Amino acid sequence: MENPVLAEVTRGNTVESRHRGAAIVIDAEGGVVFSAGDVERPVFPRSAVKAIQGLPLIESGAADRYGLTEAEIALAVSSHSGEPLHAETSLAMLKKAGRDAGCLECGAHWPMGEAAARALAKSGAEPSALNNNCSGKHAGFVCLSCALDEDPAGYVKQGHAVQQAVRGALEEVTGAEHSSDRMGIDGCSIPSYAVPLKALALGFARLGTGHGFGPERARAAARIRAAAAAHPFMVAGTDRFDTRLMSLLGARAFTKTGAEGVYCAALPELGYGIALKCDDGAGRAAEVALAALIGRFLPMDESTQVAFAPLREAVLKNWNGTEVGRVRAPAG
Amino acid sequence: MENPVLAEVTRGNTVESRHRGAAIVIDAEGGVVFSAGDVERPVFPRSAVKAIQGLPLIESGAADRYGLTEAEIALAVSSHSGEPLHAETSLAMLKKAGRDAGCLECGAHWPMGEAAARALAKSGAEPSALNNNCSGKHAGFVCLSCALDEDPAGYVKQGHAVQQAVRGALEEVTGAEHSSDRMGIDGCSIPSYAVPLKALALGFARLGTGHGFGPERARAAARIRAAAAAHPFMVAGTDRFDTRLMSLLGARAFTKTGAEGVYCAALPELGYGIALKCDDGAGRAAEVALAALIGRFLPMDESTQVAFAPLREAVLKNWNGTEVGRVRAPAG
Repeated sequence: MENPVLAEVTRGNTVESRHRGAAIVIDAEGGVVFSAGDVERPVFPRSAVKAIQGLPLIESGAADRYGLTEAEIALAVSSHSGEPLHAETSLAMLKKAGRDAGCLECGAHWPMGEAAARALAKSGAEPSALNNNCSGKHAGFVCLSCALDEDPAGYVKQGHAVQQAVRGALEEVTGAEHSSDRMGIDGCSIPSYAVPLKALALGFARLGTGHGFGPERARAAARIRAAAAAHPFMVAGTDRFDTRLMSLLGARAFTKTGAEGVYCAALPELGYGIALKCDDGAGRAAEVALAALIGRFLPMDESTQVAFAPLREAVLKNWNGTEVGRVRAPAG
Repeated sequence: MENPVLAEVTRGNTVESRHRGAAIVIDAEGGVVFSAGDVERPVFPRSAVKAIQGLPLIESGAADRYGLTEAEIALAVSSHSGEPLHAETSLAMLKKAGRDAGCLECGAHWPMGEAAARALAKSGAEPSALNNNCSGKHAGFVCLSCALDEDPAGYVKQGHAVQQAVRGALEEVTGAEHSSDRMGIDGCSIPSYAVPLKALALGFARLGTGHGFGPERARAAARIRAAAAAHPFMVAGTDRFDTRLMSLLGARAFTKTGAEGVYCAALPELGYGIALKCDDGAGRAAEVALAALIGRFLPMDESTQVAFAPLREAVLKNWNGTEVGRVRAPAG
């Protein structure tokens, strides 16, 4: 039984490419609102669960101890484009904990944002770990480690106190076992555990409502959501999908992309969590598939609908600026 | 009936992503050697058919009239990375026809090769149409137009003599109708026509053998194949798959990637043509799927097999250089 098509890519009047996948919308008590495809198969959530991974930073008191700002908390749950403000903010977080970029264990890469990468190249500089799209999360890990009075060295390893706290939060919030048998190493070197989409959606429903959380965790979740809503640029960057979505919808949608076609979201006013993965790992498909689900369930006034339309259906242009096709959820 | 998985992406010991698609291997008389998935559904070949699109450049006498070198002929059937040698060679072709880069109608984009793009940015320059991955093909179109005594202006349009010649060659070589109903606009602004994979594979079997061609076309096809085998860098660029394949296999394999997960190849000594498309348009999957088919049919000595192995199975590393997974054809 194959997963359904979540997104199609047209050229002229022909469908050129098709993206299959699975998606689920669930409420915080586990009631399934929508389900398509195999939502029980374990998938690596990758960066889509950074907000859950960020809970210990708040709950431990580290964020308050080091006086992290709302923008810094947003960056701690981001996959940012490595633009100057992102890199500077990561460094500021590290400095608040008395550390510097030398502590980061995520590795260096050229900014994910192409314009930022070219600007950095033009300046003659080389990228550092601060430009890594995960540097905000890693700066948060370093802050957490310091607040726990643990040496940050090796904080990416499965056995380090930071990763144990992160894994504990993931298991509690999603309700799914995070098994070493289903562990992979993420792009930024921390463990990623494959769990069912259904558990990820439930985790996001809880994250969006606090339902099933103790008061401290509920406050931490609300603080992270508020930070992302107030600083959507920090969560991703220029022209990025999360930034566009949350700039438009504010606190009504908390969304987070993950590598290999994963997307998770919470729609707090509805109490819904969403999780989807495109089988083939395509981000372009995950984006329009997520927008289709948000558009299906979240009421929007007319002007919001108009602004939302390009998120649901992306226009593909060629190098002369001529429209050649679309990326969209299939009709019906 | 869904297409089979042509490539899978692992992380740790888990399959993280899967790419479905269709593939066919056929001989020059149309005998099917291998077939998987729906090979009758029309697909846009995109840049995979540049060698067929390049036949009129040779057959018209334009290549000889302007004294195009073997390297320039290779560039005329390339999707190059926009590296300096590619851009310079495109310009040299245009100058031989008494033209310059202002004639190019492909649009400008940053070099497809990331290192080349950053080097260009570092130099303070902006990309021109010469950096467009199709600039060699377009320079060939301008040469063809001039040799036909046609004004090159508008050479990308369906009605221009250049595109009529190209469409004619495509129809004759593949044996498939290239219908305006199945036309899309390619990234470089020329028409692309969706045709069955089976027809594309047949076209490549003919291109690799000359079988079914008149002597002039057979010579033109052989000249293009020889140019690519002698100048694999010109066909793609640094670290690119076509360049790696043809650098290793020489004239034993003529391969050409196309956007949205298409790959075509000819294995002249076997008389086989290959065409495949990943449903989702993923290039990473098309690459290993093509390598799997070449590896299945083309005999290789032991040292070639060793060098070929990384083409069949790509290692994915994270930003710290740690292996995190593989891209490969599924076992069995």
